[in-house]
Amino acid sequence: MGSDQYVPPSGRRFDAAALEGFAEALLTRAGLAREPARDVAQVLVEGDLMGHNTHGLQLLAPYLRDIGLGHLCTEGEPEVVADHGAAVTWDGRFLAGPWLVRRAMDLAFDRIDTHPVITVVIRRSHHIACLAAYLKRATDRGLVMLLSCSDPSAASVAPYGAIAGRYTPNPIAAGFPTDRLPVLIDISASTTTNGMTSRMNREGTGRLLAGPWLVDNRGEPSDDPKVLLDDPPGAVLPLGGMDLGHKGFALGLLVEALTSGLGGHGRADGETGWGASVFLQVLNPAAFGGRERFVRETGWLAEACRTAPVKPGAPPVRLPGERGLALREQQRTAGVTLHPEILPALAPYAERWQIRSPLPLGEG
Amino acid sequence: MGSDQYVPPSGRRFDAAALEGFAEALLTRAGLAREPARDVAQVLVEGDLMGHNTHGLQLLAPYLRDIGLGHLCTEGEPEVVADHGAAVTWDGRFLAGPWLVRRAMDLAFDRIDTHPVITVVIRRSHHIACLAAYLKRATDRGLVMLLSCSDPSAASVAPYGAIAGRYTPNPIAAGFPTDRLPVLIDISASTTTNGMTSRMNREGTGRLLAGPWLVDNRGEPSDDPKVLLDDPPGAVLPLGGMDLGHKGFALGLLVEALTSGLGGHGRADGETGWGASVFLQVLNPAAFGGRERFVRETGWLAEACRTAPVKPGAPPVRLPGERGLALREQQRTAGVTLHPEILPALAPYAERWQIRSPLPLGEG
Repeated sequence: MGSDQYVPPSGRRFDAAALEGFAEALLTRAGLAREPARDVAQVLVEGDLMGHNTHGLQLLAPYLRDIGLGHLCTEGEPEVVADHGAAVTWDGRFLAGPWLVRRAMDLAFDRIDTHPVITVVIRRSHHIACLAAYLKRATDRGLVMLLSCSDPSAASVAPYGAIAGRYTPNPIAAGFPTDRLPVLIDISASTTTNGMTSRMNREGTGRLLAGPWLVDNRGEPSDDPKVLLDDPPGAVLPLGGMDLGHKGFALGLLVEALTSGLGGHGRADGETGWGASVFLQVLNPAAFGGRERFVRETGWLAEACRTAPVKPGAPPVRLPGERGLALREQQRTAGVTLHPEILPALAPYAERWQIRSPLPLGEG
Repeated sequence: MGSDQYVPPSGRRFDAAALEGFAEALLTRAGLAREPARDVAQVLVEGDLMGHNTHGLQLLAPYLRDIGLGHLCTEGEPEVVADHGAAVTWDGRFLAGPWLVRRAMDLAFDRIDTHPVITVVIRRSHHIACLAAYLKRATDRGLVMLLSCSDPSAASVAPYGAIAGRYTPNPIAAGFPTDRLPVLIDISASTTTNGMTSRMNREGTGRLLAGPWLVDNRGEPSDDPKVLLDDPPGAVLPLGGMDLGHKGFALGLLVEALTSGLGGHGRADGETGWGASVFLQVLNPAAFGGRERFVRETGWLAEACRTAPVKPGAPPVRLPGERGLALREQQRTAGVTLHPEILPALAPYAERWQIRSPLPLGEG
């Protein structure tokens, strides 16, 4: 989620490992144990590395705020609600989301040789950041992974035909291997995300969205994020917009059912804490038609898409994840660019705890 | 799939049971055994009952044609490629699709008390008709069902940024229970379906689509289905269209991976027979957060959506499946309306085999 409108920020670059160390130090000082602090730091920096710059280190300041408020829980373990081997339900107790998701993935990887499909549902996780940032660990093992979440405390997306929000953008992420690069999908079931519209409204530049992806409180389509600040607020349209929004609405409801529905906790409980209901599934192609046949099919189609004819002068087709993986390689070497909002938001925490902010490469 | 642009055809109505009997008689006479003939007839009529009129009895004439050509196989059983209890792969040998899907569902229902998540992948199924027509049997049992398919022999949908088709509309269907009506989802990952554009081109009335859902062979968006008849042909755009089509493209690729990828057979094999790679998954909420909590969450959200504010004078929000289920009830009583193409296409078969076509209600 959040990659739709990525524009590489110009300017200073930071060493990825230094950013991770900085984030981990802040999180540890705030109260997280070492393993969750490391997982959160890695997942956030991974988001920035792949260009999802509304869902990388941008989230660290609000996470630190939630630790301070006691809403992001720093103590204990997730509670096992049900464990049937291949189908597991946890109550995440608002523990750090990236730590919970990575633990759920480790559980799936441990069991995948016994159970070809592992499903883990987590209710009451804290926010889980950039979904694309998790997938490569699964595809590197030759596995397919599906990951979705919803946030029962928010309701920014309008049902198709409505003019007010009732649920969340509800990302659908999926990774699968091919015979070359994996395909890494991370889309929302809405036209745009909360991260993007909130940032545009904070910036206040009057910049408009690239399409009429919102509805104002009188029911008119709009490309102006300010309609979300009206009273009553407008809403984000489901994927498909004014003409085909019944499709995005359907996908959004499906994600709600798989996350808060299977988890058994959500909007019906009046949940108000920023967090996530999570659905994670790992499938092993080796136990279906076979691993080689899987990558033969996915690789063949990836190549057929990549080489499909385009409008004269247009760039070639790009597969989902292709740009993110290239950017990740490049930024691992040349340094990570950060959106200008990010470090200033962390500066008060760094000052309070006397943790040195990373210096841009070439200025160290 | 295919419900997006449903316009109830006016005119004559037919008794649903009479239509089923007629279809079953034609299929039996064509060579199908009794059980597959009954399953195909029921699923097709169910499609018309729910208003999916490009994916109901409209398909019977081409199915009969494929039986005649020996491409829809009438003999034998699916071959079990792999069976790990909760994860099953079949080679469908181009047996009747609705029969295969219903058998896969029966397998899932038989095993669901032992395995909370059952996944069945079928390669080389014949076409599986209207995906929405299968879901209610799962939701009636309190289960969640996911169903998707792709057709490796066709390639009408353009990758995002391309101007020629490389894969299929790739429907994503899902059913889940609430505390009242189930939610029944059946959308394609493309803007429109092959069934709809083909029918409009057969009719040749010059009617246009409701939006710029196609791309012509020069890369311009178009609402005219005739661009699919050009040489080289234009293509159907992925869901999201020209601005957000990377999302529909991602969903389309995911469906290809779950169907032809896991099944281990598809486009890489140069498949040319009309058919389907199928992904079916049944999940039991009772084994996750609990059945009552599941329907509490899904029911709460359904009601919140249904009562969301709309533009003055606009109809209230409708949940996916709501119209189809209402139409089904109504048509079960008052009779089924058929698109005017359907019975004339079946008349030659009925005449050849001396099977009486059903008469409209009131004319019997």
